[in-house]
Amino acid sequence: MPDQDQLHAMRHSCAHILATAVQRLWPEARFGVGPVVENGFYYDIDLGTDKISEEDFGRIETEMQAIVKDNQTFERFEMPIDEAISWATEANQPYKAELLNDLKRAGTTVAKDLNADELGTIATGDAQVENVSFYKNGAFTDLCRGPHVESTGKVGAFKLQRVGGVYWRGKDSNPQMQRVYGVAFATPKELRQYLDILEEARKRDHRKLGQELDLFVFSEMVGSGLPMFTPRGTVIREELAAFSNSLRQRYGFEKVWTPNITKIELYETSGHWAKFKDELFLVTSQETSDKMVMKPMNCPHHTRIYNSQPRSYRDMPVRYLETTTDYRDEKSGELGGLNRVRALTQDDSHVFCRPDQLEAEIDNLLAAANDLYATVDMQLRVRLSYRDDTDAYLGSAELWASAQDQLKTAVIKNGLNYFEQAGEAAFYGPKIDFMVTDAIGREFQVATVQLDFVQPERFSLDYTAEDGSRQTPVMIHCALLGSIERFMSVYIEHTAGKFPVWTAPEQVRIITLNQEDETVNFANDVWQQAKNMGVRATVDNAGESVGKRIRAAELYKIPYTIVLGQKEIEGGQVTPRIRKDLSVNDEVVALPITNFLQTVLAESLTRTLKSAL
Amino acid sequence: MPDQDQLHAMRHSCAHILATAVQRLWPEARFGVGPVVENGFYYDIDLGTDKISEEDFGRIETEMQAIVKDNQTFERFEMPIDEAISWATEANQPYKAELLNDLKRAGTTVAKDLNADELGTIATGDAQVENVSFYKNGAFTDLCRGPHVESTGKVGAFKLQRVGGVYWRGKDSNPQMQRVYGVAFATPKELRQYLDILEEARKRDHRKLGQELDLFVFSEMVGSGLPMFTPRGTVIREELAAFSNSLRQRYGFEKVWTPNITKIELYETSGHWAKFKDELFLVTSQETSDKMVMKPMNCPHHTRIYNSQPRSYRDMPVRYLETTTDYRDEKSGELGGLNRVRALTQDDSHVFCRPDQLEAEIDNLLAAANDLYATVDMQLRVRLSYRDDTDAYLGSAELWASAQDQLKTAVIKNGLNYFEQAGEAAFYGPKIDFMVTDAIGREFQVATVQLDFVQPERFSLDYTAEDGSRQTPVMIHCALLGSIERFMSVYIEHTAGKFPVWTAPEQVRIITLNQEDETVNFANDVWQQAKNMGVRATVDNAGESVGKRIRAAELYKIPYTIVLGQKEIEGGQVTPRIRKDLSVNDEVVALPITNFLQTVLAESLTRTLKSAL
Repeated sequence: MPDQDQLHAMRHSCAHILATAVQRLWPEARFGVGPVVENGFYYDIDLGTDKISEEDFGRIETEMQAIVKDNQTFERFEMPIDEAISWATEANQPYKAELLNDLKRAGTTVAKDLNADELGTIATGDAQVENVSFYKNGAFTDLCRGPHVESTGKVGAFKLQRVGGVYWRGKDSNPQMQRVYGVAFATPKELRQYLDILEEARKRDHRKLGQELDLFVFSEMVGSGLPMFTPRGTVIREELAAFSNSLRQRYGFEKVWTPNITKIELYETSGHWAKFKDELFLVTSQETSDKMVMKPMNCPHHTRIYNSQPRSYRDMPVRYLETTTDYRDEKSGELGGLNRVRALTQDDSHVFCRPDQLEAEIDNLLAAANDLYATVDMQLRVRLSYRDDTDAYLGSAELWASAQDQLKTAVIKNGLNYFEQAGEAAFYGPKIDFMVTDAIGREFQVATVQLDFVQPERFSLDYTAEDGSRQTPVMIHCALLGSIERFMSVYIEHTAGKFPVWTAPEQVRIITLNQEDETVNFANDVWQQAKNMGVRATVDNAGESVGKRIRAAELYKIPYTIVLGQKEIEGGQVTPRIRKDLSVNDEVVALPITNFLQTVLAESLTRTLKSAL
Repeated sequence: MPDQDQLHAMRHSCAHILATAVQRLWPEARFGVGPVVENGFYYDIDLGTDKISEEDFGRIETEMQAIVKDNQTFERFEMPIDEAISWATEANQPYKAELLNDLKRAGTTVAKDLNADELGTIATGDAQVENVSFYKNGAFTDLCRGPHVESTGKVGAFKLQRVGGVYWRGKDSNPQMQRVYGVAFATPKELRQYLDILEEARKRDHRKLGQELDLFVFSEMVGSGLPMFTPRGTVIREELAAFSNSLRQRYGFEKVWTPNITKIELYETSGHWAKFKDELFLVTSQETSDKMVMKPMNCPHHTRIYNSQPRSYRDMPVRYLETTTDYRDEKSGELGGLNRVRALTQDDSHVFCRPDQLEAEIDNLLAAANDLYATVDMQLRVRLSYRDDTDAYLGSAELWASAQDQLKTAVIKNGLNYFEQAGEAAFYGPKIDFMVTDAIGREFQVATVQLDFVQPERFSLDYTAEDGSRQTPVMIHCALLGSIERFMSVYIEHTAGKFPVWTAPEQVRIITLNQEDETVNFANDVWQQAKNMGVRATVDNAGESVGKRIRAAELYKIPYTIVLGQKEIEGGQVTPRIRKDLSVNDEVVALPITNFLQTVLAESLTRTLKSAL
């Protein structure tokens, strides 16, 4: 297995091979930059009036494979910069010439393998450039810092992915070029695995499923990054939030409620205003002179509730829970589906406790997180984010040492897969970051547990200790799901929309075998019985054939479908169709309708992942 | 019983008697205006450097009673306006002189009994003023339109209430005066009843109880009109909202979720922007050019969800439910407790239906309202608010006639106490306004059911009718509680903080008879059992005496208190103390702890108002 440097060299060499192939097919091609990116590489190309389309990928890849087969050596050589400029001009490579001229003007001692992002660094150099380096393979020569693999035969497996339009150096006053992307891995097997995951991710894309399964909608009139949830999507939101809440209510958390806005004063006190003022939605009152903002987090509001009563050591810990929507003014370009939104609902909670209570409180929260992620069938690992030796942290060193120790003890006690990282703490305290792996192996950071030694001081929070002295509590911030919207984007893709019974918006689809009154009435009775029990069901007695209606239920990925006709009316039994991924038995037997509904209810309440039928 | 005109004359005569008494006590007193207000009257008085305080009320009232006893006749007479001005100047009544001069300048044919509010009307007159009318009783003469009672002996019963500072004619550049308020009724009995209600209302003031019972808090840093709810207050909010939701979910309403903000475009389309743009909180995005506002209502958002799918006549009605917080930019001066807030959470819902489905849908909503207000023990009556014959209404006359008819049928079907009022409809449709009477006889408007023929058109909503044509649905807006914050202000005062078991933040207080481990552990076990069952309980095993701890539970108005000691540990039985208003039996018998907790749970789930013990 190659290390990361080796893989980088392979991918970078792929970019040169791509350019070599393109130059063979379009000798007039002019090249921009060709760097390595995550999982692959790209090259910016200008063919003049001609254009590369994805239909050309076949012949480009054939040419690339021929170059690989040639096993051309990558030869490095240097040239004085003025000579290099002449070379570029003669070779009809105006973009390379421009880079070299900039390099000469700005001055730096090393000729980099330039790409748009790196151009900025040129301007800071001050030494005189003398030589720049080149790499040559076969007939293709490129200005390049390297390194490369030894020869074109050693680049592993690659595949061109897509082509898009870009402006040279990202400026829309510059000429337009085409950027051809490819992916590359050390072995064909790794490439195939990656392409399989890409294809699987495409099928599971939560934006696509969100529409197909009727879960959420966006509207131009409302604005970007502001999803609205349909009845089906709202079921999932509410089930997830209720579960997260119940896990913490078990440990004494109590619900509170705070508004979505506040005067700026609250954040001036907390310190958030100085840090985040450019990322907040500003709120203007037309009736008063209040200067307000939408809350981007809930801790300062919660300190106001804590502070509304005198607290004694006996009252501690005080634990608040609130599922509430925060607003962050994200740039439009960064918004996509539920992954990044401007209205993010947090399953937030805050503990105010004595320093000696930290470990037990963290322990409870980790137990809750463990339970939650096991239930949604995601692998959880945590990062213990500690301070480092710099003076970027507030609070006494002893408090930090003790707190970090207690975090670690609680993590170990909960049997969590963890790693430690110094320098990753917040300035106000150490934290635990939750990372989950989804069904197709992607890792996401979802939520955190954070200690906070700063806000209690800034808000002058206190409690009376046993000896009568006034002490400052420690705060613990914790969300289990994090942003419910973002978690849902992960969850929808993790399940591919095949929700287990407890989060399935519709648990049972009832299909009538015919349109006769007796059948329709019977179906409605079963529906009413389900509803009264708390099972989410709907009746489909519309004009389509039974086959088509079963197919419609399958498209909605409904866990159970039952078809009701004369036999079911007479026998009072059903043989449910079970969604394939839920089923554990090859053959499903008929059972009384009430038993069937009770089973569905029990599966929902116990949040099982498989059918008991 | 006097009619309203008679009562008005009595109260107005009281104002003159007050001025007569003040003139006797302070001969230099200069008078402003003295109108009738709800339940009484006031007079604006300027004593120069001297001031009336509430300590003077005794001797003023004694003087007033003497004037009543004199039974002085109220004599009406007229005077040419210039003569009247001379009279006022000679009598050292500069405020009256100012009014008369204004009257002369502005011109109007009738000399009104002027008060600050009515001054505006003077400016609109154009006829020349000739005579103005006066009333005289004993030695006191006042510029006055009347009418009065015959003589001072016929004014009924009165009482001075309070004195406050005001600016002459409400302008802060004018001299400051004192406003002395009194209440007056036809009989001493009615006065006493009114004063009793006032006293009772003072005791029940939800702002006072909110603090005493630790239900909600305000913070200067967060802003006025923005309450935050403690764990105790949040229980009440959530129980009320959950009940309201469950009543509508029974009729097929489904929860949806929408963000608290939107681009202005949404309200430009709905028509709200043109009407309400000055009452909204404006939201500024710093990262984009989006012009946004906080939502003051939810209907336009809900149309976006309706519109996200094609709908057929078979899908109708589509019913959405959302408990969500709306923001309205109220003036600071108008904010007080939960009664009027800037963050108001609505238990909102919208039906999109065919015109022929209106009656059944209204019927369901009224049944839900009936159930809700019976459960909270408030008398409900409704106003049917119809259109009148002006052209201020949108939508066809036939649609209106049919809709009003269907509203009335549903109201009658639900056996509701109702009255009809033309000209009270919204421009977009007729409505039903809910009015409730609380425990001390005060009536509040709480929520509405509104038909809407306009928004569906403006948003181009449609459904496919059975004949394949595209039709426009009708919308029904309905909240049962209205603003949950405002409803809570009524509910807290209605119950005087003695919440029934289902909304009681704490249902059972568990008190230990001693601090021994065995007792404390037993109490904790009972608490855990209660918690697992879903009964809200807390343990008080703090250092105070049992008596003091029982008293503390009483102050929190907790429905049940149980004291646990050796006897309870051994016998497994408790004799609960029941809050007096809940109790129906004189003697409470001991019962097994599990039975006791089951009874509490059952009372909570069935929302009973009385104890079953």
